[in-house]
Amino acid sequence: VHNGIEYADMQLIAEVYDMMQNVLSMTNAEIADAFDEWNKGELDSYLIEITSKILRKTDDVTGIGQVVDYVMDKTGSKGTGKWTVQEGTAKGIAIPTIAAALDARILSGLKEERVAASRILVDSSSSSKAEATAERQQAIDDLGQALYASKVCSYAQGLSLIKAASDEYGWNIDLSECARLWKGGCIIRAALLHDIQAAFASSSSPANLLISDKFAPSLNAKTSAWRRTIGRCVTAGIACPALMSSIAYFDTYRRERLPAKLTQCQRDFFGGHSVERIDQEGHFHVVWTDAHHSIGDVNERTAGEKIKI
Amino acid sequence: VHNGIEYADMQLIAEVYDMMQNVLSMTNAEIADAFDEWNKGELDSYLIEITSKILRKTDDVTGIGQVVDYVMDKTGSKGTGKWTVQEGTAKGIAIPTIAAALDARILSGLKEERVAASRILVDSSSSSKAEATAERQQAIDDLGQALYASKVCSYAQGLSLIKAASDEYGWNIDLSECARLWKGGCIIRAALLHDIQAAFASSSSPANLLISDKFAPSLNAKTSAWRRTIGRCVTAGIACPALMSSIAYFDTYRRERLPAKLTQCQRDFFGGHSVERIDQEGHFHVVWTDAHHSIGDVNERTAGEKIKI
Repeated sequence: VHNGIEYADMQLIAEVYDMMQNVLSMTNAEIADAFDEWNKGELDSYLIEITSKILRKTDDVTGIGQVVDYVMDKTGSKGTGKWTVQEGTAKGIAIPTIAAALDARILSGLKEERVAASRILVDSSSSSKAEATAERQQAIDDLGQALYASKVCSYAQGLSLIKAASDEYGWNIDLSECARLWKGGCIIRAALLHDIQAAFASSSSPANLLISDKFAPSLNAKTSAWRRTIGRCVTAGIACPALMSSIAYFDTYRRERLPAKLTQCQRDFFGGHSVERIDQEGHFHVVWTDAHHSIGDVNERTAGEKIKI
Repeated sequence: VHNGIEYADMQLIAEVYDMMQNVLSMTNAEIADAFDEWNKGELDSYLIEITSKILRKTDDVTGIGQVVDYVMDKTGSKGTGKWTVQEGTAKGIAIPTIAAALDARILSGLKEERVAASRILVDSSSSSKAEATAERQQAIDDLGQALYASKVCSYAQGLSLIKAASDEYGWNIDLSECARLWKGGCIIRAALLHDIQAAFASSSSPANLLISDKFAPSLNAKTSAWRRTIGRCVTAGIACPALMSSIAYFDTYRRERLPAKLTQCQRDFFGGHSVERIDQEGHFHVVWTDAHHSIGDVNERTAGEKIKI
């Protein structure tokens, strides 16, 4: 799970860097400066720190420019992110930011296909470079806030998965202690782990990191910047799957009433899976059409009365 | 995989319905009318058809309003979507739209947590109901195009997974025939399966459905509407994970050069995983900092020269 979170951290940084390079037209040095600045605040972390160093590294082979621009954009992996996604799926825990990071690595590997597709899927509607450049400092500040909020989502997902495994196997894992351990020596070490440690140290451990006192107010304060950032990416045609998966996680988790009610109706319509109601207990079949009266596999269908499942 | 695509189809419809109900303030009858209209065109499909019927079904229990609004928004599942995601992960095929649909079902199950979170994660920045209503017809047309384009992405992903399994196990599956089979009797039957059948029937089978002659021009024509739709959702704070995962898939797949180059640099920086270059063959280590000269596990590090892996 540590490595799954690491994949997400790296992908989120890659997306932010991509926006800076390809929409805001920033140089590697300018992007490195922005990362240095972020590393003094709440984004302070090992990965932010080394990203700045990487972006400043000249290309020793050609002597021209920075090495990052010569590096092949096919990402390898050792399998640990894959294992995290497999565990999330097996345990029924949603870890969409981590899954998006794994998918980004998979798709990066299809270099030849992507080169071919770039000639075919030509999107004249995207790219608002000039427009975005005009509001450049605002866009950079927004990116930092979007990065932080999305990072919190990926930690929330990873810790939810650890908690689920701990509950299932009786491991009795202390998430606060887990956050403390990650503060030293490992690749995802970051200032926000102090707050995660504190969030789970309280007597009433939050059901999810997002709603903890340490993070909820900060996330609520960042939503405008987060939404603007994703709006800019999608307008510009720059993929930001991990940023998007994070805000979708946030917006789903904080929703009292989801359109899942329609999904349940569809499942009852075509498969007789029954529905529950919000105003009374029990399982119900609905006679959606006259044809449903005579459907064999759901012949307990009534006009909406309670049924035994 | 059929069922994984079905999960995606249903989730995409749910997201579109959610926008219509909660941002465009449309009644169930108005939404059903829009679905009926869509069912006459390229979105023609069984799931669109039954959604309209569902939205018109009165609540027989109370006699007031439509039953959909009384249905509990906790989605069940029989496990088939989960199996699809597990296969995608195992085979290293990105199926993010299908995975987003599975995650949406998982998160819908956390009803009590969501109710609690809705009181805490209060996002004053979201909801632009009035603004969106002013451009209502445009927004509805855009939703239809976004739904279609996203649906094509989920089919592209599912078919890529089938192809990968077919290659691995020597099944020699004809994707055109697969599409033909799905045209009859099953839940995902849809008009666009004719075009999928045709796309893979050609002598030169496309590497991915997205770039086929049958779909690329149509997708390219829909990107503006697709981007506007996601912009509206993210601004309004309405989660649209499957729509987002689809456009991120599209925007990643059509990208010749990805920020994966930075990810590879990070992996070489902290783990000595080496990088490839775009200008010459071979694997390279970079001496990112002076400290890298003396890192034990990557003691083949040079000043960027070729190494043996």
